[in-house]
Amino acid sequence: MAHLLVLHGPNLNLLGTREPNVYGTVTMEGINRDLASLADRFGIGIDFYQSNHEGDIIDRLQAARGQSDGIIINPAAYTHTSVAIRDCLAAISIPTIEVHLSNIHAREEFRHTSLTAPVVMGQISGLGALGYTLAFHALLEEFAKRGLLATES
Amino acid sequence: MAHLLVLHGPNLNLLGTREPNVYGTVTMEGINRDLASLADRFGIGIDFYQSNHEGDIIDRLQAARGQSDGIIINPAAYTHTSVAIRDCLAAISIPTIEVHLSNIHAREEFRHTSLTAPVVMGQISGLGALGYTLAFHALLEEFAKRGLLATES
Amino acid sequence: MAHLLVLHGPNLNLLGTREPNVYGTVTMEGINRDLASLADRFGIGIDFYQSNHEGDIIDRLQAARGQSDGIIINPAAYTHTSVAIRDCLAAISIPTIEVHLSNIHAREEFRHTSLTAPVVMGQISGLGALGYTLAFHALLEEFAKRGLLATES
Amino acid sequence: MAHLLVLHGPNLNLLGTREPNVYGTVTMEGINRDLASLADRFGIGIDFYQSNHEGDIIDRLQAARGQSDGIIINPAAYTHTSVAIRDCLAAISIPTIEVHLSNIHAREEFRHTSLTAPVVMGQISGLGALGYTLAFHALLEEFAKRGLLATES
Amino acid sequence: MAHLLVLHGPNLNLLGTREPNVYGTVTMEGINRDLASLADRFGIGIDFYQSNHEGDIIDRLQAARGQSDGIIINPAAYTHTSVAIRDCLAAISIPTIEVHLSNIHAREEFRHTSLTAPVVMGQISGLGALGYTLAFHALLEEFAKRGLLATES
Amino acid sequence: MAHLLVLHGPNLNLLGTREPNVYGTVTMEGINRDLASLADRFGIGIDFYQSNHEGDIIDRLQAARGQSDGIIINPAAYTHTSVAIRDCLAAISIPTIEVHLSNIHAREEFRHTSLTAPVVMGQISGLGALGYTLAFHALLEEFAKRGLLATES
Amino acid sequence: MAHLLVLHGPNLNLLGTREPNVYGTVTMEGINRDLASLADRFGIGIDFYQSNHEGDIIDRLQAARGQSDGIIINPAAYTHTSVAIRDCLAAISIPTIEVHLSNIHAREEFRHTSLTAPVVMGQISGLGALGYTLAFHALLEEFAKRGLLATES
Amino acid sequence: MAHLLVLHGPNLNLLGTREPNVYGTVTMEGINRDLASLADRFGIGIDFYQSNHEGDIIDRLQAARGQSDGIIINPAAYTHTSVAIRDCLAAISIPTIEVHLSNIHAREEFRHTSLTAPVVMGQISGLGALGYTLAFHALLEEFAKRGLLATES
Amino acid sequence: MAHLLVLHGPNLNLLGTREPNVYGTVTMEGINRDLASLADRFGIGIDFYQSNHEGDIIDRLQAARGQSDGIIINPAAYTHTSVAIRDCLAAISIPTIEVHLSNIHAREEFRHTSLTAPVVMGQISGLGALGYTLAFHALLEEFAKRGLLATES
Amino acid sequence: MAHLLVLHGPNLNLLGTREPNVYGTVTMEGINRDLASLADRFGIGIDFYQSNHEGDIIDRLQAARGQSDGIIINPAAYTHTSVAIRDCLAAISIPTIEVHLSNIHAREEFRHTSLTAPVVMGQISGLGALGYTLAFHALLEEFAKRGLLATES
Amino acid sequence: MAHLLVLHGPNLNLLGTREPNVYGTVTMEGINRDLASLADRFGIGIDFYQSNHEGDIIDRLQAARGQSDGIIINPAAYTHTSVAIRDCLAAISIPTIEVHLSNIHAREEFRHTSLTAPVVMGQISGLGALGYTLAFHALLEEFAKRGLLATES
Amino acid sequence: MAHLLVLHGPNLNLLGTREPNVYGTVTMEGINRDLASLADRFGIGIDFYQSNHEGDIIDRLQAARGQSDGIIINPAAYTHTSVAIRDCLAAISIPTIEVHLSNIHAREEFRHTSLTAPVVMGQISGLGALGYTLAFHALLEEFAKRGLLATES
Repeated sequence: MAHLLVLHGPNLNLLGTREPNVYGTVTMEGINRDLASLADRFGIGIDFYQSNHEGDIIDRLQAARGQSDGIIINPAAYTHTSVAIRDCLAAISIPTIEVHLSNIHAREEFRHTSLTAPVVMGQISGLGALGYTLAFHALLEEFAKRGLLATES
Repeated sequence: MAHLLVLHGPNLNLLGTREPNVYGTVTMEGINRDLASLADRFGIGIDFYQSNHEGDIIDRLQAARGQSDGIIINPAAYTHTSVAIRDCLAAISIPTIEVHLSNIHAREEFRHTSLTAPVVMGQISGLGALGYTLAFHALLEEFAKRGLLATES
Repeated sequence: MAHLLVLHGPNLNLLGTREPNVYGTVTMEGINRDLASLADRFGIGIDFYQSNHEGDIIDRLQAARGQSDGIIINPAAYTHTSVAIRDCLAAISIPTIEVHLSNIHAREEFRHTSLTAPVVMGQISGLGALGYTLAFHALLEEFAKRGLLATES
Repeated sequence: MAHLLVLHGPNLNLLGTREPNVYGTVTMEGINRDLASLADRFGIGIDFYQSNHEGDIIDRLQAARGQSDGIIINPAAYTHTSVAIRDCLAAISIPTIEVHLSNIHAREEFRHTSLTAPVVMGQISGLGALGYTLAFHALLEEFAKRGLLATES
Repeated sequence: MAHLLVLHGPNLNLLGTREPNVYGTVTMEGINRDLASLADRFGIGIDFYQSNHEGDIIDRLQAARGQSDGIIINPAAYTHTSVAIRDCLAAISIPTIEVHLSNIHAREEFRHTSLTAPVVMGQISGLGALGYTLAFHALLEEFAKRGLLATES
Repeated sequence: MAHLLVLHGPNLNLLGTREPNVYGTVTMEGINRDLASLADRFGIGIDFYQSNHEGDIIDRLQAARGQSDGIIINPAAYTHTSVAIRDCLAAISIPTIEVHLSNIHAREEFRHTSLTAPVVMGQISGLGALGYTLAFHALLEEFAKRGLLATES
Repeated sequence: MAHLLVLHGPNLNLLGTREPNVYGTVTMEGINRDLASLADRFGIGIDFYQSNHEGDIIDRLQAARGQSDGIIINPAAYTHTSVAIRDCLAAISIPTIEVHLSNIHAREEFRHTSLTAPVVMGQISGLGALGYTLAFHALLEEFAKRGLLATES
Repeated sequence: MAHLLVLHGPNLNLLGTREPNVYGTVTMEGINRDLASLADRFGIGIDFYQSNHEGDIIDRLQAARGQSDGIIINPAAYTHTSVAIRDCLAAISIPTIEVHLSNIHAREEFRHTSLTAPVVMGQISGLGALGYTLAFHALLEEFAKRGLLATES
Repeated sequence: MAHLLVLHGPNLNLLGTREPNVYGTVTMEGINRDLASLADRFGIGIDFYQSNHEGDIIDRLQAARGQSDGIIINPAAYTHTSVAIRDCLAAISIPTIEVHLSNIHAREEFRHTSLTAPVVMGQISGLGALGYTLAFHALLEEFAKRGLLATES
Repeated sequence: MAHLLVLHGPNLNLLGTREPNVYGTVTMEGINRDLASLADRFGIGIDFYQSNHEGDIIDRLQAARGQSDGIIINPAAYTHTSVAIRDCLAAISIPTIEVHLSNIHAREEFRHTSLTAPVVMGQISGLGALGYTLAFHALLEEFAKRGLLATES
Repeated sequence: MAHLLVLHGPNLNLLGTREPNVYGTVTMEGINRDLASLADRFGIGIDFYQSNHEGDIIDRLQAARGQSDGIIINPAAYTHTSVAIRDCLAAISIPTIEVHLSNIHAREEFRHTSLTAPVVMGQISGLGALGYTLAFHALLEEFAKRGLLATES
Repeated sequence: MAHLLVLHGPNLNLLGTREPNVYGTVTMEGINRDLASLADRFGIGIDFYQSNHEGDIIDRLQAARGQSDGIIINPAAYTHTSVAIRDCLAAISIPTIEVHLSNIHAREEFRHTSLTAPVVMGQISGLGALGYTLAFHALLEEFAKRGLLATES
């Protein structure tokens, strides 16, 4: 059974309460619930992880080797400052999609640059919680290509 | 009936023959065909347009006012140089998703900056032709929210 | 009879509907009408042209050689990106005034630089539709200096 | 009666003798005389002030509060270096037009940036002494809008 | 028979009349005539094209696929602003030489960078109309190497 | 009872032993003791926290929601590198004052920029341990304004 | 008796009327009155000075040599442009604290850099009028350390 | 007995499996084993530590005070982003050598700058696992100079 | 009789007391006395002026027109910030030599750039008070060339 | 008889052995042989010189005054670093063409800037050894224009 | 027998007398003597060369082809300015280690960038004369790997 | 007897013939002759040296140790590119004055920065050949201070 890791970066646990004018009212738990039911529907194993610690995120990513077949990551603030997470993503070589809830290109200039984007498959930004669902479907297609799905995608 | 405009920028008509190591072997016609059948399935009107001319793209975007409810645009090279297309997208105020076949963040530095991204809803990059399908679904959800769909999304 | 060309750049045809908080509610037709009646009053021939195409603007500027004695141009977005229009203005050597409806210095940083300004006579920005009228009077004075007016200005 | 303040920055008192190839042969007194007769014609009170002192210019601008309804300012060199004049213009909130005799965009690069432009209504550059006349008319129109004129504009 | 496309960018149709101190008095027609007689002498088919439109230049370059064996292009102002022409040149993969009449390195700083140069075979600048002749000979040699010439060069 | 959180960033636990020529001989414990007795005097609850971990600081800040009414933070090195702490401070919306023992503007250039300063109430730097006392008084005044104090400030 | 100089830079005389959303409604006179009563309470001599002139501020600072034991300065706009005031502060070597009413780090980028900060003891920003009171207490402590106070601090 | 701390930064635990074309096939355990036998040969105490957490690395460095006489550190990704580790190295003042397996100067531009290098004794890069051995010998010489070795070096 | 103006910028009146490690112990009066006796020896009229006010310096420079044949100026801090003094020097067109006591190239980076240097004859820096004497001799030679000296130089 | 100097910069003596994937397999001797036979055919005197020394190249260029009528120079690495060669080329005023074997615009960014290009007639890059032949023909035409050729060109 | 070239750049012949606070008191002759005895011990041929001339260094490097199996180079000042030495090192393809006596990262900013580092095997900086010994051992290991040593190292 | 070295950098041997509009008609021999007679008058030994080779200049500067008591150097183009000459000047520690014939601040931007200026006593620019005479007098005064002159200066 194909397996997916969903990784939320710093402050995403506050989602729904934090600056709703920027991030909307959806919660991280809501996002996870939707992804879990999608995974269930498609027979995909799924794990969730949130941390405010750069090091924890790296530890979790390393642990995914030999365990997960795809990763959805929202590195949040670490997108713009963490060479270590970038190096880790490059090292573990698991198909990964980077998701941002807000349109990072329409915010402060230091959010326009992503250190992680150059080492992932693709990036989806500005589409809110829907971005996670789309990333799920993109990885599903990747799983299908690699013959990791039992029946279809 | 909700209506969608799909707009391909310069050189995308060469897709499939142009630098396949960067852009893959899918053709623009193939992408359009897939989107057309999706649109058909969901009862969405759809129009396709490709041009190598910055001005044509602006003319077409302006014509979409009062006609289209959503836009999928891949501005290709104009992403990085056209203030005029950016101004047009801001002026017409139609929900728009920007799609890039390749991961623009993993290419030359001048491709890391998007002039159009700050004025669209969201951006999807690096997921190949699938990016268009995901953008379709994102707009579908937007249509649903706005009550533009007959039955479901 | 002296002759004047009025040239509107990309998206100015949307004036009045486009982001009224930035550009106001006056329309391009309104501006042209006012200039036409002014031209009529002073016995000046006048032509109007709008295009979203950088190339069209260049073609039109080139055609003005030997035909127009002065130009009022609002290059809009092309102000900041078009070396080609700059080269054309330098090549045709007709007294030209650059007009911007909004105060470009109070907007995004990429709008603070004008590629065309260094090769025109002068620039008027931030005065809305009135900027065109003022530019008209400035060219009228220039025409007078060059003896192109029948009586005076 | 509406009242107008005309403010000339550093070295403008030398006008006519200073680098005539850049600034022309018109004098500051000539400019003032023309504006005075215009003001007279339209029933506008008018005051003139020139100083080479940044602080004097600020003092004079502050004094204009509750006294002048519009300002024409040519901050000359202080355009490019004075945050203090910028702050003052922002603080007093009187409709102001910035005038430059020469085309500042066609000169040294440090003259391309204006610290004051973002806080004024509009800017006119490169039209010589005529720029002041045009600025007068722009403020006249503003006075009319605000009902400050007895009869017409 | 080998075939050559000669492509002139914006404002080059004005050659001879435009800023002769920068560009000399030779005309585009003169350059074309010389190249035509050279082509005739060496039994090479030749086509000429000039446009002020970025999009037209792209259309024409795309049309050259399967038709022309070599390209001489003077992208003029688009050299410094067009990612779209660069992408097109990279996509069509036809041996191309970039020619500039003036020494672009001795002019304004924004002319020192060429967006197209990195994707062409070579660049010749500052040698006036002769640059075209030299580019012709360079492509002739390329044709010879590829066995496209009847006898020799 | 109003409650205050005092948060010390990385390496501040070494205070007194670390580079005394830059940071002086006062210890973190000494600073805390002084703040504790001040808090006691004014009837304010107070908590202290030090960590070298960016993630721990974020966890602690998040925990302060609904618990602390004000925060004194010296983010130390993270001032200049942590977008994640900035995002957290913006998310929790508790009145916060940033304190630096040394004058960060008189040190290496990379210490002149603060990522956290734009999202806090105010910043005090260069006043040594006294900076914390002053920050305490500033928050006391804020508490008074919000009616969080029993009697006075 | 210890003596303190309080120095307000350009436009601070407008405080209370100027952009209240940025600077609040407190007036310079109110700030001075509070500082005077504080000085009275602690037996400190105090002088106040405001000027919009960079040169006046330098003259006043120079006059403080041998007269004042501490300085509170809010250089306002000159913070960001005056090397001359910086040189003067460095030359007179009197303990000085720089105060800013607003959080300069949360405003335009050119306000993020302070030319004077590297040569003063410390900087307090963003705490409104309270910043002056805190600066007073910081200098009081400095006076105590230097044995300039009769009894205590 | 002299004591040495060997500190490996983020993702170095993956060595041997991670991008072998960049980092080679040697493992961290192999490097440690070699250093341990060297230490044994020279009668040096030695400790090893690896963490993906910036804060853990700081904690471990602080613990080395009064315990270790020299440090070999490969801060990996934190080399380029961690002011906190730099501050810690400066604070603890233990002779330290920075080692990089790959030639950081031949990789992405953001890897050319080291925040830690200015506060360590020296840096060795590009020599693979051998870099650690060389660093060992350099510290051995330092120990000898300080009289920390029983007999010789 | 030829006439010379010696102009000292801000804070130079403090010379001898101000940061003697940077500027030495010579006083401005001492420098003036030496220049006065030199002028006397060569039969040159001489005037001295010092001000901390940018505007005063400009006023004094303007007054020198038709009065002084040469100027020695040490603009001090205004060297690096005053476009207005630069414009004035360019406007009055009197042979001027810029003198700096300290070696401005060996100090903070913002002192490496001189706004006034491009419009003066020459610059002497780093030679202390002697720089003024050398500048005197350089202007003497200029006076001789222009036939302004009675007998020789 | 017209005379030509051919000057090869540093490391060009290694041509053919050095990085053939960048520079091809042609040797410097081969290039010289071809140019010599061309010179012979057209009755042109020709000298060759190669040096790895910036100073030697300058000495040789200076010696060309009054001796050579044209220069073909490939300054190689000195193109990007030598102001001294640039100054020399400007000083000797002999028609010069700069040749680069590889397309310098397609290599490392520091090779995109040429210090010498602004002071030569023209530049040819990316055409391999053929670039020298084309430069020969360009100078031949120049010789013809100047009447330096016996019969024709 | 394996052979090693040791190359010292400009001013290294002054070592021991030159700025001992930066470079220590060891002399170049001392360094060479130590390396010679090491080479002798391991049966390695060794040559030494010092020059202040960029061109001499290039000549010597070129001569090493087919002669030396490894190079230790301290390019000194040329590290930061010589593209020509970089090109030469890349051209000759001999295993090379770059050594710097001082920690170049802790000095002036222009010393932080090395033009040569990207084309050598590795770099050792800040370890004084010991750096050369370590470089020797690194090359010894390289020689062993390539089977160039009689017995082993 | 005190001894002076006069060192002319690249292309200064062409003085008088080279770009007389920039450098005047005086020759290097003329400058040397004047300095020789001055030296003779004051009983100073003097040597002259010119080279186009960076390395030669360094060799000559090194040879001056223990031989010359002062240096006048015009590094010409090497002013802007030679870290090696800068290092040499710092290493030999002989009082040195840098002279430039032209006003380097009024020329191309790359001539505004001097690598050598921060390590010399002072700099004189823009005063033509007179700059050398002034430098001579400045060193004479230095010699007097150091008691190197027999009688006076």
